[in-house]
Formats: sequence, structure tokens, C-alpha cells
Amino acid sequence: MNEDNQLAPGLASTMTVTTVSQSKCFGGVQSVCSHESLETRCAMRFGVYLPPQAQTARVPVLYWLSGLTCTEENFIVKAGAQRVAAELGLAIIAPDTSPRGLKIPGEADSYDFGIAAGFYVDATQAPWSHAYRMYSYITKELFEIVSSTLPVDPARAGIFGHSMGGHGALTIALKNPSRYKSVSAFAPIVSPSRCPWGEKALSGYLGPNREKWREYDATSLIEDRGWKGPTLLVDQGTQDQFMESQLKPELLLEVCKRLGIPLNLRMQQGYDHSYYFISSFMEDHLRFHAKNL
Amino acid sequence: MNEDNQLAPGLASTMTVTTVSQSKCFGGVQSVCSHESLETRCAMRFGVYLPPQAQTARVPVLYWLSGLTCTEENFIVKAGAQRVAAELGLAIIAPDTSPRGLKIPGEADSYDFGIAAGFYVDATQAPWSHAYRMYSYITKELFEIVSSTLPVDPARAGIFGHSMGGHGALTIALKNPSRYKSVSAFAPIVSPSRCPWGEKALSGYLGPNREKWREYDATSLIEDRGWKGPTLLVDQGTQDQFMESQLKPELLLEVCKRLGIPLNLRMQQGYDHSYYFISSFMEDHLRFHAKNL
Repeated sequence: MNEDNQLAPGLASTMTVTTVSQSKCFGGVQSVCSHESLETRCAMRFGVYLPPQAQTARVPVLYWLSGLTCTEENFIVKAGAQRVAAELGLAIIAPDTSPRGLKIPGEADSYDFGIAAGFYVDATQAPWSHAYRMYSYITKELFEIVSSTLPVDPARAGIFGHSMGGHGALTIALKNPSRYKSVSAFAPIVSPSRCPWGEKALSGYLGPNREKWREYDATSLIEDRGWKGPTLLVDQGTQDQFMESQLKPELLLEVCKRLGIPLNLRMQQGYDHSYYFISSFMEDHLRFHAKNL
Repeated sequence: MNEDNQLAPGLASTMTVTTVSQSKCFGGVQSVCSHESLETRCAMRFGVYLPPQAQTARVPVLYWLSGLTCTEENFIVKAGAQRVAAELGLAIIAPDTSPRGLKIPGEADSYDFGIAAGFYVDATQAPWSHAYRMYSYITKELFEIVSSTLPVDPARAGIFGHSMGGHGALTIALKNPSRYKSVSAFAPIVSPSRCPWGEKALSGYLGPNREKWREYDATSLIEDRGWKGPTLLVDQGTQDQFMESQLKPELLLEVCKRLGIPLNLRMQQGYDHSYYFISSFMEDHLRFHAKNL
């Protein structure tokens, strides 16, 4: 199965995108937008940073996927990405992490499942399958809305993220290599099939058959599909409290070594799981993507 | 009256400072600390960024004063100051904006008076005079705690802030020129005696006698005391929704021109009152202070 989607430019034109807020930042504009999503059946927000270069030309676009508990807000206020994005001429799209307000029983019972924990999958299990479709939301609906309404060049798109969003970025790029031409991650969950966060999410959204989980596990996807794109860049703090129990960077290192996939895994001495870690290495990631795009 | 305080190094040694959180950031350490304040009669938190240089030497120290509704958290997560502070070797202290949890009737009734709105004054009116002593807290107690417990050089201290905190930075520096050797502000309230926020705060904390307000009004202080320190640096966004009604940068410009006080007032085209504005020009302010210190 090839899920490397083609653009369907007609779709987005039927949708209305509302600007919730807008602030000048490093010569560009940081906005928050909202729209009614067909995939997630609710209003979805996403952050948009447009660099000054976007006033006169279509610019490359980077998608940022956030981690557990986050909204579209965390990245845009905490990551400090706008300065370098302005310099390099990169647009950055930062969506929310799940549907909200659907009133599905249990949706808000835990921080690692349901609201703010969509895990970037298309759920197949009721009641989640109705609207927990973050994979299709990110790769199709949001991509099309952004491509058709903003001054970006969809042929130069990359993706990156943090923790659950690092998992999202890796799996989405591995499944859509012709759409996302560059991928990196901060402290990603590299194999949700083999950690408590992932096992809870994947069994809840996809059911108990672990074969179905391979589509959403970066290490399995590398085994099943390989990766012919540029080097995967991954930063991991050595003082990250989730590294050993949930993130397990060694599993990614192992499969990449075994299969000859280029991986630049940087163990960052003394850094934890926070945005203080992310902001410290944001510039490196933006330069990495700009080079690839 | 000269309020240019002398250090009292004995005081701080009686106090216990607790580290609430600590994260490596740009090679240095971003912490949040807490202590029981004698001035404000409650536990007070403050952010501390120590650059890598502080591991081997005492470094210059900058105090950041935040605006209305803020805690010690806003600056440290949103301003993006750590990168340049690490490069320049500057420590940055970011205190909370008022006492909290005192259960004074009315303390939480409005966003612009009481909690998170201490205005960096020593209140003289009951019930506020008991603990709303942010002026003494910043200039004496916090200064002494920081100087005696952290690897900073108190002889090289500067101060800056935003909005209410820009007012705080200007008034505190103008009253203590030998302690704070460099001052700058983002979108400061330049004359609280002449705007609704300031009139509400100063009448509430200091009473109706406007003569007493002069001690806490940057334009009056410049008239009364002058300023022999380095150029005052002030950035003001032209799309700031509070510029005309509350901030009134023209009043600062007028008095500085009239009295020959060096002021670099930069009107930043299109910027608003948010941290997107602050972060865009943070680097300039840090380089300005590093040069002065």
C-alpha cells in the first residue's frame, strides 16, 4: 500500500480558514488560524509563521508536530523558531495535537490518550475512528489547506516534531517520502509498539492486532519501506526523563544501522524533555531542513 | 531622598532559596527558584538563567521585570533570551510581578491591580502596604539574595522590562543609578500618573496625593533627578493596542529632549504588545546591556 498522497487542490477551496490572531515577529507574521475539519469533525487550530520572504514568493514549508498535552500554541511561543525561519525564508505550520470538544466518553480522562494525544494515527476502533484521524488530517486536509491558501511551495515541504510529534513526523515522512522531503525529530517516540505510551495509544486507536501497528511505528516502517531521503536528524537529551522508558532512541539506531539508513542521532549531554532543550537546537534543525528543501 | 541602596550582605544568608525546576538551555541552566520573602510576606518565585560562563566566573546580571498578568514564567519561556545570554555571558533574573496568596480582599478582582499587578511600588495604603512592596523586594531583597547566592557580579547589574515592567525598570534604575548601570524597556508605561492603568494603581497603592506618585513615574523622576547613565533604550511597536491610551512614549521623548537625557526610542513598525514583539528585539537589548556592563 502506497499512502504517498496526491494533492487534491479542489478540496481546500471549499473550506474557510479564519485568522484567530496575528502578530509581527522577526519581520514576518506569526498567526493562529482555525477551520472546520472534515477529518476530525471539529474546529482545528494551527499556527502559521510566514517569513518576510513570503511577501514576494512561495517559500518552503515545514510542519511541526507537537507532543502530548500540547496545543498549536506551545511551539509558537516556546520554540524560538521564528528568528531563524525569518532568516532562511521558511514557513512553519504547527497544528494542534488532536480533535477537541467532541464529547467522546473518556476523551479527557488521561494525558496520554484522547484529547491532546492523537498520536498522528487514523483510528480504526470505535468510538475514536469517527474523528481521531490525525494522520489524514495532517497529510491530506491540512496539507491541502496550507498549500492552497498560503504562499508556500508544497513541493518543498518538510516535517519535524517532538516526542509524540517526533513519532508523528518520522512515521508520516516514512510513509510519504515524495511529499515530505526532509524530516527531523526532537526526543521522538521511535517505536510506539514497544513502549507504554505507544502501546496504550495504538491498542486504543487501532485495536489489539499488532500487525496493524506497524504502519505507525517508525522502526517497523523503516524495515518495511526503507528511506531514500536525506539523513534523518534526531536530537535526544541525555537527561530526558522519558528516554529509557518511552523514547528508546537505541531502537531507531539499531534498525538504521542494520538497514543502512542514514541517521544522525545526536545525544545532547544534560538536556531534558522540555522546550528549553528544543529551543537550544531549533536553529540546527531549521538549517538542516532549509538545506534539504 | 537618595534611595540608591547599599548592599546588606548579611540579610540573604538568613534565607533559604529552593530550586523549583532546572533545565539545561543553550549550554547554561534555566531555573525557577522560590523563597519566603520578608518584603512581600509570601513565597516568591523568580527565574534564573545562568550562562555557561557562570560555571567559572561571576557574570554580569540583568533583571527582567514583566508586565501585567505575568508570573516568573512568561519571560523565561517566551522571550527567547537564553541563546544570546549564553553567547554574551549574562545571567538573567526574572521575578514574579506581585505577592500571591495573601487573601487580601479584592486582590484578584482585576487584572490591573493586586495580584500580578504590583507596579513595582512600595504601597503606603492599607491593606496593600503590608506586603505590596515590590519596589523594596526587587531593589533590596531579591538583589541581595541573587548577589549572595548566585555566581553573579552585583557591580555589573542592569535592568529591563515590558509594559508595567518597563515602567518598573525605568523607575528603579532612575532611583538607583549606582546599582543598575544599564536600563532598557519594551513598550513601557512611561508616565503612570497620566494613564488609566497607572492612575488606578498609584492611587490604590499610594493614595490620592499625586506628589507621592512622582517617585514612581519615570518622566517625573527624570525631571527630579536626571540620568547620567548610558543611553536609555526603548522599543515601542507601532501596532501596540495600548500605545496611545496607556504607554504614551511621546511623554518620555518630550522630557528627555527637554532635559538632554540620552534616549534611543525606536518605533518598531507593525509590532504589537506581545512577546512576539519582545522576542524580535531581545537580542538588541541584550547586546546593549552587555556593552554597558
